[in-house]
Amino acid sequence: MTLLHQPHHDGSPAYVDDEAPRLGDTVTVRMRSHTDDPIEDVWLRTTYDAEPVFVSASRTTEGETTWWAADLLVHNPVTHYRFLIARADGQQWLAGNGLVDLDVPDAADFKLTSYDPAPDWARDGVVYQIFPDRFARSASADERPIPGWAVPAEWTDTVAFEGSDPRTPLQFFGGDLDGITDHLDHVERVGADIVYTTPVFPGESNHRYNATTFAEVDPLLGGDAAYERLSQAVHERGWRILGDLTTNHTGDTHEWFRAAAADPQATTRTYYYFNHDGTYANWMGHGTLPKVNHGDPDLRAAMVEGPDSIVGRWLQPPYDVDGWRIDVANMTGRLGPLDVAHEVARAVRRTAASLREDPLVIGEHNHDASGDVDGDGWHGTMNYSGFSWPVWSWLRSASTPARAFGRPLQVPRRNGPAVVDTIRAWQGALGWQATTSSWNVLSSHDSARIRTMVGSPALHRVAAGLQFTMPGVPMLFAGDELGLEGVNGEDSRRPMPWSSSDEWDTATLEVYAALSSVRRSHAALRRGGQRWAYVDDDTIAFVREHALGSVLVVARRAAGPSFALPLTLGTHLLGTEPGSPEADSGVAPASDSPRLDIWSV
Amino acid sequence: MTLLHQPHHDGSPAYVDDEAPRLGDTVTVRMRSHTDDPIEDVWLRTTYDAEPVFVSASRTTEGETTWWAADLLVHNPVTHYRFLIARADGQQWLAGNGLVDLDVPDAADFKLTSYDPAPDWARDGVVYQIFPDRFARSASADERPIPGWAVPAEWTDTVAFEGSDPRTPLQFFGGDLDGITDHLDHVERVGADIVYTTPVFPGESNHRYNATTFAEVDPLLGGDAAYERLSQAVHERGWRILGDLTTNHTGDTHEWFRAAAADPQATTRTYYYFNHDGTYANWMGHGTLPKVNHGDPDLRAAMVEGPDSIVGRWLQPPYDVDGWRIDVANMTGRLGPLDVAHEVARAVRRTAASLREDPLVIGEHNHDASGDVDGDGWHGTMNYSGFSWPVWSWLRSASTPARAFGRPLQVPRRNGPAVVDTIRAWQGALGWQATTSSWNVLSSHDSARIRTMVGSPALHRVAAGLQFTMPGVPMLFAGDELGLEGVNGEDSRRPMPWSSSDEWDTATLEVYAALSSVRRSHAALRRGGQRWAYVDDDTIAFVREHALGSVLVVARRAAGPSFALPLTLGTHLLGTEPGSPEADSGVAPASDSPRLDIWSV
Repeated sequence: MTLLHQPHHDGSPAYVDDEAPRLGDTVTVRMRSHTDDPIEDVWLRTTYDAEPVFVSASRTTEGETTWWAADLLVHNPVTHYRFLIARADGQQWLAGNGLVDLDVPDAADFKLTSYDPAPDWARDGVVYQIFPDRFARSASADERPIPGWAVPAEWTDTVAFEGSDPRTPLQFFGGDLDGITDHLDHVERVGADIVYTTPVFPGESNHRYNATTFAEVDPLLGGDAAYERLSQAVHERGWRILGDLTTNHTGDTHEWFRAAAADPQATTRTYYYFNHDGTYANWMGHGTLPKVNHGDPDLRAAMVEGPDSIVGRWLQPPYDVDGWRIDVANMTGRLGPLDVAHEVARAVRRTAASLREDPLVIGEHNHDASGDVDGDGWHGTMNYSGFSWPVWSWLRSASTPARAFGRPLQVPRRNGPAVVDTIRAWQGALGWQATTSSWNVLSSHDSARIRTMVGSPALHRVAAGLQFTMPGVPMLFAGDELGLEGVNGEDSRRPMPWSSSDEWDTATLEVYAALSSVRRSHAALRRGGQRWAYVDDDTIAFVREHALGSVLVVARRAAGPSFALPLTLGTHLLGTEPGSPEADSGVAPASDSPRLDIWSV
Repeated sequence: MTLLHQPHHDGSPAYVDDEAPRLGDTVTVRMRSHTDDPIEDVWLRTTYDAEPVFVSASRTTEGETTWWAADLLVHNPVTHYRFLIARADGQQWLAGNGLVDLDVPDAADFKLTSYDPAPDWARDGVVYQIFPDRFARSASADERPIPGWAVPAEWTDTVAFEGSDPRTPLQFFGGDLDGITDHLDHVERVGADIVYTTPVFPGESNHRYNATTFAEVDPLLGGDAAYERLSQAVHERGWRILGDLTTNHTGDTHEWFRAAAADPQATTRTYYYFNHDGTYANWMGHGTLPKVNHGDPDLRAAMVEGPDSIVGRWLQPPYDVDGWRIDVANMTGRLGPLDVAHEVARAVRRTAASLREDPLVIGEHNHDASGDVDGDGWHGTMNYSGFSWPVWSWLRSASTPARAFGRPLQVPRRNGPAVVDTIRAWQGALGWQATTSSWNVLSSHDSARIRTMVGSPALHRVAAGLQFTMPGVPMLFAGDELGLEGVNGEDSRRPMPWSSSDEWDTATLEVYAALSSVRRSHAALRRGGQRWAYVDDDTIAFVREHALGSVLVVARRAAGPSFALPLTLGTHLLGTEPGSPEADSGVAPASDSPRLDIWSV
């Protein structure tokens, strides 16, 4: 049986008649199956205050599709459910990770949350991540004195990237905010419309994740006025801008910490976890990164709660950010027996919601964010586990020097079925809403570049194709579109080669632009469901389906033969390689090379 | 490769050098593999405040076993971990549900809890569940007047068991507490040493889950004095006794509720969730079972918190119970957006710990208890999902009239590999400590009888064999040992046939006695690890391993051939059918019928 004839449900509008219900609402949820599939009966199983409850599903037939519908009471803030399928020869469950033949625990249940989804702009947009020191220097950059901590670098210098190299955090290329403003046409060319910069607070490093204050924009970046210019320019284009804040720790040069360390009576002393002997909790053993104490109401008020908090102040003019990417969100508020992580996430979201009509809060989690993202806190996460890792593992080059991130071994190389099973496992764990609101990341300032990971422009474009067509929001690290390389996060922070446009990978740049365009013009790619259509070692194909028109995506990591699909292929909307492959109506054409194609269906 | 040569870890002492660590401790954890398995390297991955951390494992060889050891910092109250296995051809994880080839979410990670384990008596004992109305009538039972609500029944009458039959909850057989005391020799004969009675509070039903008061023992059972006699008699044998309390709701005839319903100013009004119109929250739509409000401090003090609460009072003389089985623990403290379930569980445990040296608290959860049982609340659960369901699905008769419990379909019939995968999935979800402290249930007052489920004495004894040899604590519903039947929970409450001992299934009774004995005399069955040895459709074999001696368990649901094992089989310790099968040292013998055998290895 083709995968497309398997029973299916996801959180998209075809299957859930209200994707943003309120507590107490009843929502009709539907499962589809093929009329040839001899299913005798289907029940919806939900949990009601942790007690399983079964609701018989009604059956209707529409062409070759059987629809099974049942009413789901949204009794808990996040209501779990799955479908029980009865056949003459046995029972199966359909859960968020797919069909399961065993009576397994609930972790991968479908989840319907009663909290507001991420705002439309955040779900429909394309995020462009900028690391300010390496993006662009404005004309005024030369006028600023270089601070004592910095190791000055020319724009074309090689980036120091080994942790053992003392220059790694100190090498100063001098990119600034007006440099970003100057290059918004480039962002537009890529097709992005959400500008996300890593921190712009003063900090004695090139990455600025060790802020010395949250009270102003780093003068080295042009200060508050430059940020205001950037924010205005972004908003004038109808775009959005996101800040980046570490809520887990500050630098030990931060004004709060310096005061606290100098004087046990300082008002900021309780912001941190000081021991009696003057030692203090920090990030992963790094004394330079003291952990802040979200158990302390004063710290919470200063950092995350209310309009005068750091979170609040930047959401207002002159900065006027549309939301936050929260760094180290996973550890924030967690320390041994203490766990107020959800309270902090809620406070950030509450503060944002009180100040702006449609803010976004994204929590960084490089690991397992399930449970942290479907509530009333973070709208989503940087989806390394559910997107980056599986895509990397499918497309990675056998000989790449790219290093894994957060793991002592190379990224394993895996085949299509394993990769799809992994993606489904994470979709099940996170749930549809959190998955589709999370960021599909291929590279970031923390990871190797996708180009280095996969080792070829064509495979890079296949990866980009998945980034823009899989459920989730594409987040592009500036420079990926030009084919920049990097073996690890630090190496990936190479300056944008503005002056050597002859070295740009314009073919890849054009594919990003085309992907942005096709995503914007096809609701299916932004809001549609996802059904897997065909998977073999080297091929992953799926449909994204929406009432306004559906599409088929066929990704190949290698040459491969044609294969039949029970679909009528329509217009060829995009190919990551030249040539518009000829498709019979029910056949995905063969390819002699890696490529990704999108057809209307 | 035999299953026994696969990489393995569990929570038993061979693999975890401190099974009851304190927060901040460092514990050495070990993974074993076979020397022929070409593993290049192993890392322990743990999460530290939700951040993954890898620790390289050191390697030592002992005969054909390679041991990989790493230090695990118990940084969080429940610390998660798994092993990353590097081979030349790829990477694998070893997690609580077994080997996984994909980078999947954390739900099945191994878990090490820093909270105290269940007391020794509860981990090493055998629980005997008694439904007082149906167990035994003492001489004085005839002297008590039958109350107005009751439908009197003779001891040999047929039990009404359909929900639609109004007699089902009212049929009154008149068993009492002195009747239990009179029959403790029978309990001893079975080999049980923990007496657990369903509720003994007055209630206008035969099951007494709808108490009218918690202040005394039902006079129909003999009142407080009879309970004191029972408790003393149990303790004189060196045994333990457990009460049964519903913390989720009371009956609408309960004194708290009657006062609350009659007067909005009543002190107990806040104990319940009254709406403005006088309606109130209840259990699953049953207005006769009003839900109590654990958000209310007064209700909490009355019911669960402190020595004068219901929970507390019964842990003291004259009742002197050793702990509680908490009914509907899964829903307790949960109602829509409110979730204080863990706080209630913690309060019950805290109250118990303040009054007794080594109390036990078991929370009923007929579904997915993961997350509710590895903390500082319930020590374990009634493990329907992780034990009963998979065992039923392996052994059920195709034609049984036994009905599923909490599910609209019959228990599916599944083969050995599916059953073992299911058991492993639940062990992974619950964790080792919660699994081994939970109750292995084959029948209960809520379910069909195992005899009716499997349809034959031999298969019943295979099930009993698994109940006593799988990780977990056997909980035997009184009458199973005599071969009583029942198609659902109500039907299973048939009176004990004391006067017709000729109808007893004494072969099965003797197997229970032998199982209790072998479990008591072999630490491996109480405290040992578990490695799967051999699985096919009709055979499930595993070893339980302990420094004091290990055992092999071979369960067959049908006739089957011999199979080789890399083990030296020693003494035949038990067979559920006659005949001591001849085993070569490395061969499990064939069988021409269902049976379960235990050998020392």
